[in-house]
Amino acid sequence: MALSVPEGYEPLDARSLPGYLARHPHLAARLGGRPEDWRVVEANDGNVNQVFRVHGPAGDVCVKQSLPYVRLVGESWPLALGRIHFEHLALREHGKHVGRRVPEVLHHDARLFLLVVECLTPHRILREGMTDGVRYPRFAAQVADYLARSLFFTSSLALTAEEKRAGVAAFSANTAMCRIMEDMVFTEPYQVHPRNRWTSPALDGLAAAVREDVPLKLAAFRLKHHYLNTTEALIHGDLHTGSIMVTQEDTRIIDQEFAFHGPMAFDVGSLLAHLLLSFFSQEGHATARAPREDSASWVLEVAEALWSSFHETFLHLWEAHGAGAGDPAVLLTRPGEREALRTERRAFLQRLWEQSVAYTGAEMLRRIFGLAHVLDLERIADPERRARCEERCVHLGRDLLVEPGRYRTVRDLTAAARNAVARTPRGQRA
Amino acid sequence: MALSVPEGYEPLDARSLPGYLARHPHLAARLGGRPEDWRVVEANDGNVNQVFRVHGPAGDVCVKQSLPYVRLVGESWPLALGRIHFEHLALREHGKHVGRRVPEVLHHDARLFLLVVECLTPHRILREGMTDGVRYPRFAAQVADYLARSLFFTSSLALTAEEKRAGVAAFSANTAMCRIMEDMVFTEPYQVHPRNRWTSPALDGLAAAVREDVPLKLAAFRLKHHYLNTTEALIHGDLHTGSIMVTQEDTRIIDQEFAFHGPMAFDVGSLLAHLLLSFFSQEGHATARAPREDSASWVLEVAEALWSSFHETFLHLWEAHGAGAGDPAVLLTRPGEREALRTERRAFLQRLWEQSVAYTGAEMLRRIFGLAHVLDLERIADPERRARCEERCVHLGRDLLVEPGRYRTVRDLTAAARNAVARTPRGQRA
Repeated sequence: MALSVPEGYEPLDARSLPGYLARHPHLAARLGGRPEDWRVVEANDGNVNQVFRVHGPAGDVCVKQSLPYVRLVGESWPLALGRIHFEHLALREHGKHVGRRVPEVLHHDARLFLLVVECLTPHRILREGMTDGVRYPRFAAQVADYLARSLFFTSSLALTAEEKRAGVAAFSANTAMCRIMEDMVFTEPYQVHPRNRWTSPALDGLAAAVREDVPLKLAAFRLKHHYLNTTEALIHGDLHTGSIMVTQEDTRIIDQEFAFHGPMAFDVGSLLAHLLLSFFSQEGHATARAPREDSASWVLEVAEALWSSFHETFLHLWEAHGAGAGDPAVLLTRPGEREALRTERRAFLQRLWEQSVAYTGAEMLRRIFGLAHVLDLERIADPERRARCEERCVHLGRDLLVEPGRYRTVRDLTAAARNAVARTPRGQRA
Repeated sequence: MALSVPEGYEPLDARSLPGYLARHPHLAARLGGRPEDWRVVEANDGNVNQVFRVHGPAGDVCVKQSLPYVRLVGESWPLALGRIHFEHLALREHGKHVGRRVPEVLHHDARLFLLVVECLTPHRILREGMTDGVRYPRFAAQVADYLARSLFFTSSLALTAEEKRAGVAAFSANTAMCRIMEDMVFTEPYQVHPRNRWTSPALDGLAAAVREDVPLKLAAFRLKHHYLNTTEALIHGDLHTGSIMVTQEDTRIIDQEFAFHGPMAFDVGSLLAHLLLSFFSQEGHATARAPREDSASWVLEVAEALWSSFHETFLHLWEAHGAGAGDPAVLLTRPGEREALRTERRAFLQRLWEQSVAYTGAEMLRRIFGLAHVLDLERIADPERRARCEERCVHLGRDLLVEPGRYRTVRDLTAAARNAVARTPRGQRA
């Protein structure tokens, strides 16, 4: 079945792309030489869109184009082309605040639903590096800075109500991508659903228990209600270790097609979840020669550094730039009121922390029982060994989602993760 | 200074209106006879827009037109014409769910920013009736039904996420009207501001205390943040006893120009606040012949009946029609899970109640210290007597806003109001 597309739209391919780029002088100049000198490589990591890297004598560009369906699945799963439009909008908006943490936009074609951004080299996907046990010393601080800036500056703590509502209106149309999260994060893992899959038969019992766990299901839907009804900031919307590219020195955030005005905690929780998934997967990759204990420790140190650095940066931004419609500083202007303001800001961040803990749990569970799994665990070839790692994810994830208030600090969270591994008798470890 | 307006816009007046109506056959037919037979009466109760009632031999219509400024203030306070567009949208949307509780829309002119609705006769403004001590036996049940239906059916408990986000986008542009609330409800009463006024000098001390009350100011801004970032339902946005027209048999809700997707509790709290303001004003109108004790009791009975009827109707609607993206029923489908679902729905309403209590407090305070006051209190001619009524509003309002959790039920709220009057020695009563 051919999906209907707007007039003027056509998917480009490796053959037609050079001609297209050549018609845009600033892109041609960036590549250098002539179109016949350009090498086009289709990236395999584009699950949703098609992605090409184009290499010329003078430089590279990365071309991303929406297809009218999910690339990885095919025409049986249609998906609104407009997602590239929201990615473009989010890159522009976040780019104002986070500088080089997001790729530079070089070109946007509304008719072809196509975006050209700078090529990130020699960066690799963070998840792949972490699965290989590589450590990235600058990652925690850089991603914390990105998170604090992208969330603070697009919230009503920094914006006027008019600016904020204009952003809400613009991104409210990104319903197709939000719908994927609404279904796949909060709903399907708790149902019998044809899109679900898990390590079977080892996790069959746990999957059934999740579907019958009333407090868990209610907690998932309270969170879904929060996701559906909160417009705190322009969030990335799918911030996991596969949406981040790194080197030893640099961290860049990509794949903004899920962006919308939603709960800040969704981004924070998603990232923490993927760190915990990576942590629990490390033992599954351990060998006698590479026991992975250092990598595992590093992952939890990243979680701790990420939150404490985020917390500090967010407070600093708020103190320096808080002039938005929702910033109480407008009412607390006397010297004697400054301490109360500081306490209030910390209380705000504590509420954000607790919401983030709940979202962390939801994200962990859906990556074990839902459609989209993570390489960190999938690459553990032995299903029994993988299942033992995944069980820990499920038990902790369930607890985070149902009782987020028990985890008052990030150290409570990382301690629980460490204990979950230590509790397992060594002989039964993954 | 002439304010700029879009091409084609012009304000109509009593002279030009019949000609305009005559050019629309369905309106002319409703009025009957010829334009020269029609009597045009400009209503004085249009604070924001100009309102005309047009009477013909066969029937009446009500014409409402945006001016490029606040009618009551004049050109010194410009205001976006588009407000009538949002009133029209809200009337259409709520009209689908609440039936005759909102006026029927007869005509909308996007170029003239003009709306023609049915004339409500013999209805009068509820606030005026209550200030005169009149009781309306059907009001509580009818307004509770309106509130439950308008909020439930425009929330993600009933709507798909796509439907809900489309509504959010459409109403996000009503920034001018939301801005009035953001400033006048949550900000200005806690500042020295030229728009503020209060019963002076009697309340000068209390006004100063409010401006220095740190927990109160922080609570007001936590609520403002909630107002700015919550899109639970299409709310009326200014639901007070002056936006309601009544007879002994009927209740109708008007003036939807503040409508947007916001917190459900804003509507519930606003209405409760105006009931409490009315309650505290009753003693100020008491005379030996008309002691007003029965009217005062009736007002609190209305508050109790309103919440309990709202609670019951909302639960009933949820059970019967809850198929939206945010309804947990999709996950709790087994007979054994029904009780948990009922408990969860009640917990949702309890959270809504506590948020409503806080909004009640904010609305009471702003009607004492901000720009917009209420007839209930303003009509108490003696300033000392009025101030004694207002003081009670301030003390209770402050407590509701700072410690909403202390008022677990509507009876806690009405008991506090009764006690506030009983505590005052009889000789010092208003």
